[in-house]
Amino acid sequence: MATITILGAGYMGTALAVIAAGRGHAVRLWGTWLDDELVQPVLRGEDHPRLKLRLPAGVTAYLHGDLAAALQGAEAVVCAVNSDGALPVLERALPHLPDSGPLLSVTKGFLRDEAAQIQRISEVIKQQLLRPAGKDRPWIAIGGPCKAMEVARGVSTAVLYAAEDTAVRDQWADALQDDHYHITRTNDLAGVETCSAFKNAYATASGLCDGLQLTGHPEMFNTKAMMFARAIAETTRVVVAMGGRAATAGGQAGVGDLHVTAAAGRNRTYGEHVGRGEAPDRVAERMRAAGELTEGYPALQTGWDLVQQLAADGKLRVEDFPLLGALHRVVYGGDDVAETLAGLRLYDDDER
Amino acid sequence: MATITILGAGYMGTALAVIAAGRGHAVRLWGTWLDDELVQPVLRGEDHPRLKLRLPAGVTAYLHGDLAAALQGAEAVVCAVNSDGALPVLERALPHLPDSGPLLSVTKGFLRDEAAQIQRISEVIKQQLLRPAGKDRPWIAIGGPCKAMEVARGVSTAVLYAAEDTAVRDQWADALQDDHYHITRTNDLAGVETCSAFKNAYATASGLCDGLQLTGHPEMFNTKAMMFARAIAETTRVVVAMGGRAATAGGQAGVGDLHVTAAAGRNRTYGEHVGRGEAPDRVAERMRAAGELTEGYPALQTGWDLVQQLAADGKLRVEDFPLLGALHRVVYGGDDVAETLAGLRLYDDDER
Repeated sequence: MATITILGAGYMGTALAVIAAGRGHAVRLWGTWLDDELVQPVLRGEDHPRLKLRLPAGVTAYLHGDLAAALQGAEAVVCAVNSDGALPVLERALPHLPDSGPLLSVTKGFLRDEAAQIQRISEVIKQQLLRPAGKDRPWIAIGGPCKAMEVARGVSTAVLYAAEDTAVRDQWADALQDDHYHITRTNDLAGVETCSAFKNAYATASGLCDGLQLTGHPEMFNTKAMMFARAIAETTRVVVAMGGRAATAGGQAGVGDLHVTAAAGRNRTYGEHVGRGEAPDRVAERMRAAGELTEGYPALQTGWDLVQQLAADGKLRVEDFPLLGALHRVVYGGDDVAETLAGLRLYDDDER
Repeated sequence: MATITILGAGYMGTALAVIAAGRGHAVRLWGTWLDDELVQPVLRGEDHPRLKLRLPAGVTAYLHGDLAAALQGAEAVVCAVNSDGALPVLERALPHLPDSGPLLSVTKGFLRDEAAQIQRISEVIKQQLLRPAGKDRPWIAIGGPCKAMEVARGVSTAVLYAAEDTAVRDQWADALQDDHYHITRTNDLAGVETCSAFKNAYATASGLCDGLQLTGHPEMFNTKAMMFARAIAETTRVVVAMGGRAATAGGQAGVGDLHVTAAAGRNRTYGEHVGRGEAPDRVAERMRAAGELTEGYPALQTGWDLVQQLAADGKLRVEDFPLLGALHRVVYGGDDVAETLAGLRLYDDDER
């Protein structure tokens, strides 16, 4: 059994703590400086305030001041903060990181590197933090359709563990897999990271339809399905342009993750508010203030910027992204939701 | 402008009549011997009882006795009955079919040919009816995520027109496409027909989860998404084994159509009842008696039989269909729903 330190005591970090403890590992769950309200009750032996369950005995919680102690001797470290938090958290963790052992990451998204180019989060963190400190290590990205509330309760869940170092990946997949938490192993790190980030952007589309319906528009399951399939077609193009495989976007990492996010995530809720006619920036602000992070809002901007960047490099064509463009215009350009959706022309022109 | 005869005055036939009339065509909407209750009100100038809207002036309704008149001089014929009805209806229509002009079909499913082999519906009808009568003609299969209620009301909808004869296909796609009814053209007839049929079987999976939740089980969006993505993976394998293209299953025909069906179709409703613990055969019987056809029930049997047939021909492996097998065991083998879903092991083993 191993000692595993999880950085971030929100939904997903805590759910992973439950799973790892269930497999008998010694789990240290460290909360960031934003997580004190989540960790304090756990330290008092109460329910975790978000997951609403008592953590198993194998989990020890750490307040943010105890980062060094939380990391000492950890055989694997899990990054479970949001994409904004990844760099600041890992910067603080860096001096205390053990010399070896992989970094597993449920953190999604892209970051800008030192040349202001958008890169996958694993690349930027390796480049900017780990390698300069001589602490490079295998990176295992965790993707797939996984709501924390459910996986912590033993609901059957499919995830992907993606890494270039397949031996280390298999070691940790073996160590964490259980009868409900099904781990598909892949070497397509680029594909899984790209899918995880883009699904947040595209999940807003489903919410837009829901919002319109709530304000008197007819049901539009046809449009929702059309956008879902188109989102996969566009995600596939980005995945390939980023060096990943099309099959990754067509599997649990792409189709599966978008499905759960569009059905039940906060990004869908975000889109619903926008569909009801609220100003996109106000909705983002209000949800953030209420502690409901909507990664879809920044993801639409970053995703759109990434598409421009990849087009400039000749790796894809902007005109193949009519849906992403439409969502971006609605959220950042003030375009009317109903008119924009009615104006969509989403032919699958590949399929002649 | 053309004269178009639609065989079948249910949801989808009538919705297509609305679209075709909107493009200025002369539309003849013929109701089968089961459709009198739908056609009579239309003849009296009332709303269509299922679509709940008044048909435009360009649509002329015909009772089942007037089949010859309905077909006389038709430049295109649309088959819009269910899969059980296709052979009997087209048998009666055969003597009256004009010598040329394509057959468009929204009818989904597989039929057994004279050697008791399961084949695509277009193949069986050509083989058993059209060719022996010297009336072979281009077949255009219509697939994609399209609820009739919505497309008849101008909700943005993506469909596919699939045909081997691409010139005829383009002629009729041009003739029927409008600002809301978006037609992707493809030559992958085998792929589109296969996707259309299998989505009915797989859509029951979503309903099973909904039914469990309604009887006190926790939310299982993770499992639902896992099964959705797996359904696409399995459908892709059948499509390829049937001679179609993987990309078809990954696009509007597969992903899109399964999405709308699993979210809002009668096959989802069927699954929900089974998930609540009702006997699968009883639910099918009751829904059929209420006029709510659940094609997913027979589609699960036919789909499972087809997988065995293709495996016997060496075109796929039965063990790559764990989800279809599980759904089949629940619906035809009496297996417990909750246990079966909890026991699913849906690794995407392709994605190493």
